[in-house]
Amino acid sequence: MTPVERAQLAMVLEVTAYPKPGNVDRCHDYEGTRLEHFLASSILARPALEKAAGGEEGIGEVLREAVRLTTAHGGGNTHFGAFILLIPLLRGGDIPGAIRAVQGTTVEDAVNFYQAFSLTKVRMLPGDPLDVADPRALEVILERRMTLLDVMDHSKEHDMVAREWVNGFSLTRKAADLLHECGCGRKGVVDAFLRLLAASTDTFIVKEHGPLVAEEVRRRAGEILDGMGDLAAFDADCIARGINPGSIADIIIGAIYIALGEGWEWDCSRKE
Amino acid sequence: MTPVERAQLAMVLEVTAYPKPGNVDRCHDYEGTRLEHFLASSILARPALEKAAGGEEGIGEVLREAVRLTTAHGGGNTHFGAFILLIPLLRGGDIPGAIRAVQGTTVEDAVNFYQAFSLTKVRMLPGDPLDVADPRALEVILERRMTLLDVMDHSKEHDMVAREWVNGFSLTRKAADLLHECGCGRKGVVDAFLRLLAASTDTFIVKEHGPLVAEEVRRRAGEILDGMGDLAAFDADCIARGINPGSIADIIIGAIYIALGEGWEWDCSRKE
Repeated sequence: MTPVERAQLAMVLEVTAYPKPGNVDRCHDYEGTRLEHFLASSILARPALEKAAGGEEGIGEVLREAVRLTTAHGGGNTHFGAFILLIPLLRGGDIPGAIRAVQGTTVEDAVNFYQAFSLTKVRMLPGDPLDVADPRALEVILERRMTLLDVMDHSKEHDMVAREWVNGFSLTRKAADLLHECGCGRKGVVDAFLRLLAASTDTFIVKEHGPLVAEEVRRRAGEILDGMGDLAAFDADCIARGINPGSIADIIIGAIYIALGEGWEWDCSRKE
Repeated sequence: MTPVERAQLAMVLEVTAYPKPGNVDRCHDYEGTRLEHFLASSILARPALEKAAGGEEGIGEVLREAVRLTTAHGGGNTHFGAFILLIPLLRGGDIPGAIRAVQGTTVEDAVNFYQAFSLTKVRMLPGDPLDVADPRALEVILERRMTLLDVMDHSKEHDMVAREWVNGFSLTRKAADLLHECGCGRKGVVDAFLRLLAASTDTFIVKEHGPLVAEEVRRRAGEILDGMGDLAAFDADCIARGINPGSIADIIIGAIYIALGEGWEWDCSRKE
């Protein structure tokens, strides 16, 4: 399996794993964003993933290309956060390589990233001078000579995906270790997802619903791991309230990419 | 979208469409063959699909490569029948081109096809001199100087996928027309699937369960279209009995590939 195939497989394995509280999974869609949008995005992103692995174009340019290829459908943002992790991981091959890759980003990468961002409906914090909805954000980047790593550093408090760039992809590493611990296939993905969700506050939920809801989700994931809650009911409640741990899902995608490269087995039937 | 991406999207859209009586779909797995096997196969087949579109290697060689790439997992045969249709469709670009492509196949293509066949668990008819389980089958092909089109012609009575090669891909064409009639997205795929199933006896069911069961499935699909049956109950009954209209599924994959190229819309949200 090539690194690009590992990245594509990571995207389809994450989205089809179930039951996953709140997210699109094999059993649930959101009204505007459905399973098919994620699967199509996994297929259509390939030329950008190849460029990420190839090492020619800048990371920001590749990110813009990935978003351009995958927002042609009507399902809105599907894998934007996942691309922010997968593209440096593909460029570097592994986590140490990805750390070097993000350290090498430039102001041009930051500008391309903002152009990619504006193709999505992902929002930053209101009032943030780098808010993508604010046309002055690009001016700020150019004035301050911010690299893409600087932009991620700016966003790290409020965005756990951006934080991966500045903390050595530590949650990605942790989630890959969880996959190795939790075992093969679909059940391994779901168990690792729940354990990461119980250990970390999802910043996407914080942005959408505030810190109290994010803390509630983290606590309830922990209760399920402790045998004190019903996963199906938790999932149904999250779906009904539109609570979507999307950043944890992004990190799980990066983690599956890493774990597959380390021998984690997606196909339990090969072990039988 | 490139032709190869259309082929990959056809594979994932077919397998995730539901409810589809008897087959692996978004809601059902078979014990040894699960949704993930089909999705992985759609991703891992790509180098062979590129060769199919590229026009260098023979069709039999490309088929062997596709099977080799996609039987690495433990899920058994996933897309063998689909490849038999998609590879000439990719080589020719459309149905007239595919007809020319299969007419140009050689004895070497037939030999490669048999080597691909032996990697799968697909069976031909017991007692058939071309039965892949019989080591003399290759000798027969070489003695009779059979091209791959001759092999398909030999199999046409008992295999509706092989029959497509000798009848101008007529069911693939019909199913693509059904997709245009049935409309966009998942519901369009399911409706076209049911209409094809009601109109044609699935030869895979005949091989596995005999003609009476195949006829029962055809009749019940028609009853559902006439509003006289319950699709979920029909699906559950097929799954419980291991009745799997796998050849109709293969033809639907070829049809989605064709229909996508003619403007059929997989993403209904773009029309909203």
